[in-house]
Amino acid sequence: MSSFSRRNFLQTSALAGAGTLLAPALQAKNLEMILDKGAIGKSKWDLDTPALIVDLDKMERNIKKVHTRLQGTGVGVRPHVKTHKSPAIAKMQVAAGALGVCAAKLGEAEVMLENGIKNVLLTTVNVSAPKIIKAMALRKKHSGFIQAVDNAQNIQDLQDAAKAAGIKAEVTLDIDVIGRTGVAPGEQALALAQMIDKMPNLKFCGILAYDGGVQHVVGFKARQERALKTFEPVVKTYDMMKAAGLNMEIFSGGGTGTYDIMSVVPGFTDVQVGSYLFMDRQYVEIGGEKNETVFDDFDVSLTVIATVINNRVPGRLTTDSGAKAFTLNKPTPLVIGEPGFNYNAGSDEFGAITFEKANKTYKVGDKLEIIAPHCDPIVNLYDIIYGIRNDKVESIIPVLARGKSQ
Amino acid sequence: MSSFSRRNFLQTSALAGAGTLLAPALQAKNLEMILDKGAIGKSKWDLDTPALIVDLDKMERNIKKVHTRLQGTGVGVRPHVKTHKSPAIAKMQVAAGALGVCAAKLGEAEVMLENGIKNVLLTTVNVSAPKIIKAMALRKKHSGFIQAVDNAQNIQDLQDAAKAAGIKAEVTLDIDVIGRTGVAPGEQALALAQMIDKMPNLKFCGILAYDGGVQHVVGFKARQERALKTFEPVVKTYDMMKAAGLNMEIFSGGGTGTYDIMSVVPGFTDVQVGSYLFMDRQYVEIGGEKNETVFDDFDVSLTVIATVINNRVPGRLTTDSGAKAFTLNKPTPLVIGEPGFNYNAGSDEFGAITFEKANKTYKVGDKLEIIAPHCDPIVNLYDIIYGIRNDKVESIIPVLARGKSQ
Repeated sequence: MSSFSRRNFLQTSALAGAGTLLAPALQAKNLEMILDKGAIGKSKWDLDTPALIVDLDKMERNIKKVHTRLQGTGVGVRPHVKTHKSPAIAKMQVAAGALGVCAAKLGEAEVMLENGIKNVLLTTVNVSAPKIIKAMALRKKHSGFIQAVDNAQNIQDLQDAAKAAGIKAEVTLDIDVIGRTGVAPGEQALALAQMIDKMPNLKFCGILAYDGGVQHVVGFKARQERALKTFEPVVKTYDMMKAAGLNMEIFSGGGTGTYDIMSVVPGFTDVQVGSYLFMDRQYVEIGGEKNETVFDDFDVSLTVIATVINNRVPGRLTTDSGAKAFTLNKPTPLVIGEPGFNYNAGSDEFGAITFEKANKTYKVGDKLEIIAPHCDPIVNLYDIIYGIRNDKVESIIPVLARGKSQ
Repeated sequence: MSSFSRRNFLQTSALAGAGTLLAPALQAKNLEMILDKGAIGKSKWDLDTPALIVDLDKMERNIKKVHTRLQGTGVGVRPHVKTHKSPAIAKMQVAAGALGVCAAKLGEAEVMLENGIKNVLLTTVNVSAPKIIKAMALRKKHSGFIQAVDNAQNIQDLQDAAKAAGIKAEVTLDIDVIGRTGVAPGEQALALAQMIDKMPNLKFCGILAYDGGVQHVVGFKARQERALKTFEPVVKTYDMMKAAGLNMEIFSGGGTGTYDIMSVVPGFTDVQVGSYLFMDRQYVEIGGEKNETVFDDFDVSLTVIATVINNRVPGRLTTDSGAKAFTLNKPTPLVIGEPGFNYNAGSDEFGAITFEKANKTYKVGDKLEIIAPHCDPIVNLYDIIYGIRNDKVESIIPVLARGKSQ
């Protein structure tokens, strides 16, 4: 890897004349614009749109609720920051009793650790040399960083990097249950766990397994049955490791759809809930233990405010919020108060609403509040979330790890 | 609108203790990380992934080609920055002979004007008071800013704001051809044009009409037929305005799919091409005038580098690039050199490849180069595009208007 050469860059770049790199003054100005401090105190209906907002009362209730519900089960909470990508919200989760947080990408973990979150479990293996080196540098600086691994080469690479950094790094093993990431459960997993355990610069801390497929299974009982069935080989693997005398202080998994299901798994330590904070159409529709049709354990706190910009065709409205404001996830965005609206966010820039019946006549400039299809990727589109209480902006929440897909 | 009160904010915010607003040092650090200056000179295969890259030779050829093709037709080029969201690329387009650029959102227009682009046509109407006031403040500062309108109330609001700002603002009328934005063609459009023309603080400059539906019609002849048919009422409207003595210096429309079709329209001044820069799977598949099955007028310059992070299940590979790296647009991402790969980017964090036959055996850590489904929204996910020449990073292109959906 060659180092950055300003002179070389200026000579060779076709973009050199275009002032490719931001001047410091401009950087500061852009950040001022992004943080939108002038919005504090405004009504949510007066925000420029599209605006991503969170109802703070509801989000705070959601944060408390997961702990209340799991009290006495012996299962803790390790929320996944891939959902909110915000150290400010992670701090609220930790203050409520979370064991720490999970991160999906090294870039997310870095933003959390560098912004005051002490305990971060990176649930994804890092496979490139620069990423492994960076991860171990992060561990050297922050003792609460734990890295997942899932193959032998990676364990050796991590050992080498930890040794070079002069540290003993905490490691968990990712067990695959859906053919995506991780090692196969059983003997293969045991062998890797023992390999980690023997490495002088690594400390084996247990396992994690995430069943991404079961979270959105509709119906509590169907979800419960599938979640526990899929987990059987993981439980066996846990038992094998326990019998082999390995350190099993972490046995992590589950999500918002299974947070109240996993506690029957022996040895299970914590759920990696993410969406419980915000909720979305995908999760509302799976049904809960007490309410079969609506999963109402948690309140929908996250919405988008959009503006009607055209109403000239009867039965149609155009808004300023398309795929760049909502993503293309299904089901479609849901306009609060207008169950008959069909919202198509398929166009990049514009939302297209069609309807047979509306509860009011919409004028150009009218605002709509809309529930998102899927909370994680929509948050990744916005630099800030407006924190709302009693319909007014109370705080600006920077989505500091937005775009940290590396 | 209440003004920002630091004291009030700190007292009331649930997030106050979390240090919601970034400290200046942290801002600078984050920007350093984002700009990734250390990547200059690296091979594209050594970039941390997911990485969005553009082949500079190909992009520069594309930029030239649209002008070469339209030479002598009397039709100019006004590229749409919603595709690239980068002032650096806009400057390259202007240097190649563009009349100026189009922007879809006020936030994009602002980023362009504040970063050295002199002529910006905002193709979307602004309907809220703060946006209208901001637009006119922008026009006061930058004389090359032109605003689209599409209704009478908005024309009056714009007149009031222009008067308050002490300017005479250039305005174009958006004519609706697909039931999305704009005014109906014909008498209604003529009436609005005359209304604008009579406003003391507005200057009527012509019309624009964008047929978003026709751009991806497969087959050149089918596309040509539909584009010209849809445009017939717009042409009539143009004639009516011309006959009424209105200033028709702008008659703008068309896109990458119709850039070589619109020049037969009398009075037509410029095409709003965007995707021609980068291309994507959606555009490649529509077919061109000379090549019926592949639209190869422009080269595919934009790709994503992804890394294989798991290969344990035969016939499957997991990558580090899912929906947050690719969007959910169709068709699916296309792995270069592996036509038999089925790439599913439906998961937020991971790409799932399934295949019956691969041209090589993939190891964990191997990199893939992948063509995006749809270029506009994928660029909106990244802070930077790596500018590549001869497979090496020559420049870092900041996507300064990324996320500017307002």
